[in-house]
Order: sequence, then structure tokens, then C-alpha cells
Amino acid sequence: MAEQRIATRADDYAQWYQDICHHAELAEAAGVVRGCMVIRPHGFAIWEKMQADLDRRFKATGHKNACFPLLIPMSFINKEAEHVEGFAPELAIVTRAGGKELEEPYAIRPTSETIIGHFFAKWIDSWRDLPLLINQWANVMRWELRTRLFLRTGEFLWQEGHTAHANPEESKEEVVRMLQVYRDFCHEIMAMPVIRGIKTESERFAGAVETRCIEALMQDGKALQAGTSHDLGQNFGKAFDVTFQNQDGERDFVWQTSWGVSTRLVGALVMSHSDDDGLVVPPRLAPIHVAIVPIFRKDEERVAVVEAAHRVAAELRDDGLTVEVDDRDDMRPGAKYFEWERKGVPVRLEIGPRDLQENAVMAKMRVAELDERGRAVKLKLPMEGIGIAVGELLDTFQKELFDRAQARLDESTVLIDSWDDFESTFADGKSRFVYAHWDGTAETEAAIKAETKATIRCIPYAEDAPEGVGEPGTCIKSGKPSAQRVLFARNY
Amino acid sequence: MAEQRIATRADDYAQWYQDICHHAELAEAAGVVRGCMVIRPHGFAIWEKMQADLDRRFKATGHKNACFPLLIPMSFINKEAEHVEGFAPELAIVTRAGGKELEEPYAIRPTSETIIGHFFAKWIDSWRDLPLLINQWANVMRWELRTRLFLRTGEFLWQEGHTAHANPEESKEEVVRMLQVYRDFCHEIMAMPVIRGIKTESERFAGAVETRCIEALMQDGKALQAGTSHDLGQNFGKAFDVTFQNQDGERDFVWQTSWGVSTRLVGALVMSHSDDDGLVVPPRLAPIHVAIVPIFRKDEERVAVVEAAHRVAAELRDDGLTVEVDDRDDMRPGAKYFEWERKGVPVRLEIGPRDLQENAVMAKMRVAELDERGRAVKLKLPMEGIGIAVGELLDTFQKELFDRAQARLDESTVLIDSWDDFESTFADGKSRFVYAHWDGTAETEAAIKAETKATIRCIPYAEDAPEGVGEPGTCIKSGKPSAQRVLFARNY
Repeated sequence: MAEQRIATRADDYAQWYQDICHHAELAEAAGVVRGCMVIRPHGFAIWEKMQADLDRRFKATGHKNACFPLLIPMSFINKEAEHVEGFAPELAIVTRAGGKELEEPYAIRPTSETIIGHFFAKWIDSWRDLPLLINQWANVMRWELRTRLFLRTGEFLWQEGHTAHANPEESKEEVVRMLQVYRDFCHEIMAMPVIRGIKTESERFAGAVETRCIEALMQDGKALQAGTSHDLGQNFGKAFDVTFQNQDGERDFVWQTSWGVSTRLVGALVMSHSDDDGLVVPPRLAPIHVAIVPIFRKDEERVAVVEAAHRVAAELRDDGLTVEVDDRDDMRPGAKYFEWERKGVPVRLEIGPRDLQENAVMAKMRVAELDERGRAVKLKLPMEGIGIAVGELLDTFQKELFDRAQARLDESTVLIDSWDDFESTFADGKSRFVYAHWDGTAETEAAIKAETKATIRCIPYAEDAPEGVGEPGTCIKSGKPSAQRVLFARNY
Repeated sequence: MAEQRIATRADDYAQWYQDICHHAELAEAAGVVRGCMVIRPHGFAIWEKMQADLDRRFKATGHKNACFPLLIPMSFINKEAEHVEGFAPELAIVTRAGGKELEEPYAIRPTSETIIGHFFAKWIDSWRDLPLLINQWANVMRWELRTRLFLRTGEFLWQEGHTAHANPEESKEEVVRMLQVYRDFCHEIMAMPVIRGIKTESERFAGAVETRCIEALMQDGKALQAGTSHDLGQNFGKAFDVTFQNQDGERDFVWQTSWGVSTRLVGALVMSHSDDDGLVVPPRLAPIHVAIVPIFRKDEERVAVVEAAHRVAAELRDDGLTVEVDDRDDMRPGAKYFEWERKGVPVRLEIGPRDLQENAVMAKMRVAELDERGRAVKLKLPMEGIGIAVGELLDTFQKELFDRAQARLDESTVLIDSWDDFESTFADGKSRFVYAHWDGTAETEAAIKAETKATIRCIPYAEDAPEGVGEPGTCIKSGKPSAQRVLFARNY
């Protein structure tokens, strides 16, 4: 089946990624709509699980969902100077509607700070109305030249939190809190370790006074920005006249934040865990937890084995797991194994006549140790208490995936002190997570990027980085003084 | 507080509806984006609950969610003749993107049959791929001239189910099944009785061979189409070349369906249950189930009463209820009552010092019986077992709202046999649910509409209509033979 081959990561990483998305039926390029994609059911189910978990965390931190218009008057985009500069080149514009040319064209939202600012101005009057904590799950559009499934697409799905506060201390707290929510989600649910940090001025969100981010390591050594949390200061407050009466009776502009993660996380998930056999998904995001394959040769075996498979499935479903019994008659077990592995199902259970006699099932984890003969280890589980045993396997697997990803991150992390070492680390398209000294200027940052394609991903939180990263030193490029090391990598 | 007055239904029904949306903070007109709205947190929470319940029902009937592009090439819209005729006048068109004029403009989806047809053609090859059962939660846009919050807006949120089948029997089954899902949802969750039926040819979805619908009665006697389920036959299959190899080895076009409900349901909910005091929401859709108002005069009472309120809240939350403890210091109890009533909270609990002594709380339902002195009846509930008691009150309230709505529907339903009676029923903007004979021609349908503004809402399911509706008779307008009565009403 030549057309079903998945490229190996070693041979062609970019092709491998595309093959995983295709063979696991996560998404496909729309083709007929430039730069856009169709998220297929298996990919959308992962996004839905991400959404459900994040939404719970947002509500637990006091945020409420709302829905603002898709279309934004062009005059709104133009109100915040940096914002228009950042987004104008990527806008999709509606110029005709209802059979007529519009007097003022609308942009399809690339993000919603402007239109939400407009409504915040209507809703906020006094300090009693603050903090106002809103989130929106929405589609947004940025006309990108080079697109890649999930990672960068013309249209994407995301959530955008928008909050308004009575003072800069509270808005800063909010920005920090939501970055922590994202980090916890990545660690606990995606099994993907991330580094928290602050963006340099040149990488800041258009219109923010400070942008915080989480950065994740992909298997090719590149970084992927997985989420951002922006302190907008009073910039949008001033642009959209969002004022409030403070406790001293004076009017002031509100301090705002915005923060978001998107369907890009599905791409990050693929690149964090998957292997050359296909998708690997942590159990907490798996659309299907368990695939049960009945094994039989003769028709008289079939009935008992399939019946047992459905019995086990029912028990697992009672424990809240999603289970597929693959009793297709026109397919061999090996082909079924192959398909469920490609789709990233964490546990496969096999039930044959002999297992039935022994009142047991054989379990194979999606990522399994190999025995001395190079075969994947299978575990024999007693039928009795199968729900508990599978639950434990899934918990262990979730933890193992995080540990594997953390080990990979540790191995790919280096502290570099010479320009030669820095250059060779990023030579020939290679990348790692490099902590190095930088003199704090945009010129040096740009020069390093131009020569190596490595960018400053963030000025890291000390607690997320190796020891010594917070200490001062000398810039690898200019030789000027540096307050602390920053995180360099090529990035998606 | 003159600005907070809600118009009465009797005085100005349209204003009353707008006031409810405003005072309950459900939504507001965007203003700056023509015909569009902002769904505020309290309104969006209702929609989220609708979504969650419907989504569960769709998944239980085998459907999977996916996400298709927002933008549709204009050439796609033009492929199905009736479809383009129906939707072209309402399209919003993107003509520029990324700073350039587009060679082919895109429409913002008004519905997705065309683009989904395109992908179905790629995904479907054999009868083994069928049925293909997809649903999408999405925003869509139809440039409407006359808009009204939730009921008709330029942009709205909805779900659109799209399925493909191997034969017309299965597609018909699907259409009927999903209409039943909608009906069950309206009855069980929205507490809103609906009439199922089939649309006349002139009211059919643009491109369908048959459209089924559910019609609900609003408090002003008008009908509201709450959901539709379309049998598309092979129309889109032929337009988008969606073929499959059938079990006889021959290629044929698939039979497709589509079905949808939208944020319009929030408007239907408002108009079904609310009263002149504000919003009324059935417990299964209530964003907040219980508001607890501590009552106290002296500071020393305050501590104990507020503490008790939080204790009760914690117990109710353990039972899965959403509870607000309204311990605001700068507001009198009466003003708090007023606010929670306007927002439609089903149960209000009051806890004062005397209640505390008696180890009880006072409960007031959002729609309560009046005592002989015209005051709303309050119920004394023992603190012990408060969770069970409140749960029972909510269950009863859910049922009572349905019964009230059903009684209103029964009272507003008439069988009419003379043109004079028909005309006077619909005179001066009035409306009821009228079952009358119609000769089956589009001419008569149009003539009746022109003279009375009453439209044929549907050819009803016999089981949903009064006795005798299925029997033949004489058309009220033309006097020609009629196979059965149909449902007439003015409509939203």
C-alpha cells in the first residue's frame, strides 16, 4: 500500500507532519479557499477536548463567554496605530453585501481588540463594573502567504480572552494568571512541557505594552509559540475611549489584557508526540481511548470473541472511555492495528479464543517498549477488573508522554557562549533551544535572526529555564553586557 | 428608575421583546456592523447550554463534528440553480485580501451545502463510506434588510448537519430522525411545544426536494420556525459530483440531507416564557439556577446570614446547580429581587435572621402563584435536605413552563372554515395557529398571504395537530378540494 506510507521524521520532517495530518484524518488543505483548511472529525474531536478543558479553566478563573461580530469596520482597525500596522496587510475585506457596494468596507476579524473595545466603552462606567472578564471562542482570518495545516492557516479557530481592569497591577496579575492557565493545560492535558517568558519588543503583539508567551519544543528542535497573554496597558482604552470612574471619583482609562490559544495547538500536539507510525495523542485528548480488535479464524470462534469484545467495551464505556470495537469482516487484524496506530488510539485490546479461555485480554500501548527480539511488548490483563486496569494504563501513558517530551526538551536545551557554537547549532536548518546572552537591542536581535534564522522566543521565567540563565554576562553577538540569557530557536 | 421599565406585552409586544433582551443582558444590536448583534454573557450562556444538549443528541445519533471554511468560492454558490437564486441576494462578499484584489471573490457562507458537497465528493468513494454523518457548529451570514435580535440577524450562530446516504430511504429516515431530535429538544429542554410538518414548495429550502420544520407559537400568536430538516435528494450530489459505487458495483450520486437550528432559538425561548417582569428561562437552560439573597438589618446579623447563604450555595453547587450569593452591600433586597427576576433566575432563596433561627430558607419561584392578597407565594424550606428540595422545585418548574406553553398553544389553536373568519383572525396584525383547508396551489397560498399576511407554516404531522386536521375538505379561499388542513399563521 505505497500510497499509505508515512514519511519518516529523519527523512523529511515537513512531509512527515503533513502525512500524519492526512493519514490520521485530522485535516486537509481546503485547496479551493486559499490557505484555509478543513478540520476533519478526528482532528476536530481533539480540538473539542482542548476547548472543553480550557473553557472549564477560564470559567473557574471568573471569565464568561460572549460573542462579538465577525466583521469589523475598517475605521476601527485604523484607530490603534501599531495595531493597524501589524494587521492591515493580512486582512480579508468585505466590500459588497446584499447586492450593493458598502460605503465603509468591513474586515473579517483578525483578532477582536478593536470591536470589543468599542463595546467595553458602552458597558463600563464605574470601578464597580470592573474587572470585566470576557472570553470568546471564534474563527478569525489572517491572509498568510505561507500556510501549513493547523500551524498557520488563513482561517483558524481560537479563543480570545479580553479583560478590563481598574489599575495596572490587576491587569498584570490577569496576564500572569492566564499564562499560568495555558501552561497548566499544556502540561496536564497536552503532556507538552512549555517555557514561559516575555517577548522582546519586536515580537510583541501589535498594540500591547508587554506580551507573555509559552514556547514548546517540536521534535525537529524548532520552537512553537503555543499561547500568548498580552498586557495592553491603556492603549486600546485610549483608542476606544474606554473610561471608568475610579474610587476617588475621577475618570480614567481602563487597563486591558487579551490572551489566546488556537487550533495551532493541534499542530503542536502532533509534533510533540507522534512517531513514524502515525499520530500519538495523550489519553486526555484522545478522541478514541481504546480500540478492541477481536481475533478469530473460524466462524464458530467469531461469535464468542466479538460478543466478549462488546462486553469489555460496555464496561470501559461505563468508566467514561470512548471505545471502538473493530469487528469489520473484510479486514485482517494487522491492517486494523495499523489503522488504529496511525490514528493515535492510546490502547489496543486484542481478544482471541485463547484469551477468552484464560478470561484475559492482551493490551498493546500506542507507544510500547520493545522486547529482546524487537517486538512491542503486550500486556495480559485479566477480564475481571478490566476497567480499572485500562484506566491505570491510560494514566501511566499520559505521564510517560509528558516525561518523554520533557526528556527531549532537556536533551535539546543548551547554554551557548560563543558565536561559533551558536552559528553551528543553527546551521543547515537545524535548531535547538539555546539559552544565550543578548545585549537587549533590536539591532542585535535582527542581526542574529538574519544570519542564523534563530529568533528570540522569549526572555524566560527563571523557574522554567536551566540554572544560571538569570545571571548577567556578555552578548554572544555584540560582546556588550547582557542582563540575563534569553531563549533562541528557529520557530514555526 | 424610569430607564429600567420593561414595556408590557399588551402595550407593545415588539418593544417588550427588545426590553427583555436588553434588561436581561442577553444581547444588543452591534450598531456599527449593520444587522449584527453582540451576544452578551447571559445570553451566550443560554446558547451554550442549548449547544451542549443538542451536541449530545447529535453524537448519540452517530454524527461527528467537523469544521469547513468560512469562505466559499462564488463559483460554488452558482452551481446549484435554486440555491444561488435563494441565497445570492443576501451574500456578503470578500473581494480583497492580503492587500490585493481577488481573482475570484468569496462569499461568507450563508450555509455550507456547496463547500461541504465539494469535500464529500473527495471523501466518498464506495457504499462502505456511507452514511457519512457530519455536523458543524458555525457562524453564518445573510445580509437581511429587517433584523431583530436573535430572530433575524446578519450574522448568526448555528449548527448545520450534512449527511450523505446510499439510497433515498435512508436519507428520508435521517431527515425524519433529526426533526424528531429537534422536537424532543424543544419539548424536554426548552419547555416549548412545537408542531412538526412539511413545508409547501414555496417555503422550501433553496435546493431541497422536501423541507420539514418545527413551528412554535409565540405569545403574540405568531409562529416561529424553530428548526428545519431538508431532504436534498441528489440535487447537490449532481451539482458537486458526489458519487459512490453501490453494492451492485455501479456508480450513483449520493442522497443528501441538511438540518439546522440557530441562535434564533434564544429568541424563541424569550418569546415563549417571559413575562412583563423580565426573562423566564426553564431550569435546564438557566445560566443561574438559584440566587440567594441574605436579609439583614444590623451588622451583627450580617455575618451569620451571609455565612449561611454561602453554606447553602455550597450544598446546591455540589448538586451541580449554578448559584449566585448576592451579598452586595450597596443594594436593598428589593432591588436585588428585581434584578434576578429580570434575568430569569428560576429560584430565589431568601435567608434572614428569623429563617436562621428556624433553620429554614424562604423560596420564591420566578413564576409564582399569588395568594388571596395578590402577593407571590413563598415556600418555607428546611435547611436540612435543601439540595433535594430545590432540585424538586426546579423539576416542577421545568414541567410547569411546558404545561403553560402547551395550554397557550391549545388556546391559540383554531380550526377555521370560512374566509370571513379567517380574515378577521388575522386582521389588525393579530395572529393565531389556524388549521384551514387549502387547495394545494402556490397561487392560492400567495393570494392568502397577500391579503392577510398569514403564511402556510407547514402541512402538519397528524399526531401534532387537532383531530380532523388530516381529513379532506374545501379550500377556504378558492373553494376547490383540499386533501387536508394546513397550519396558517403570521410568522417571525
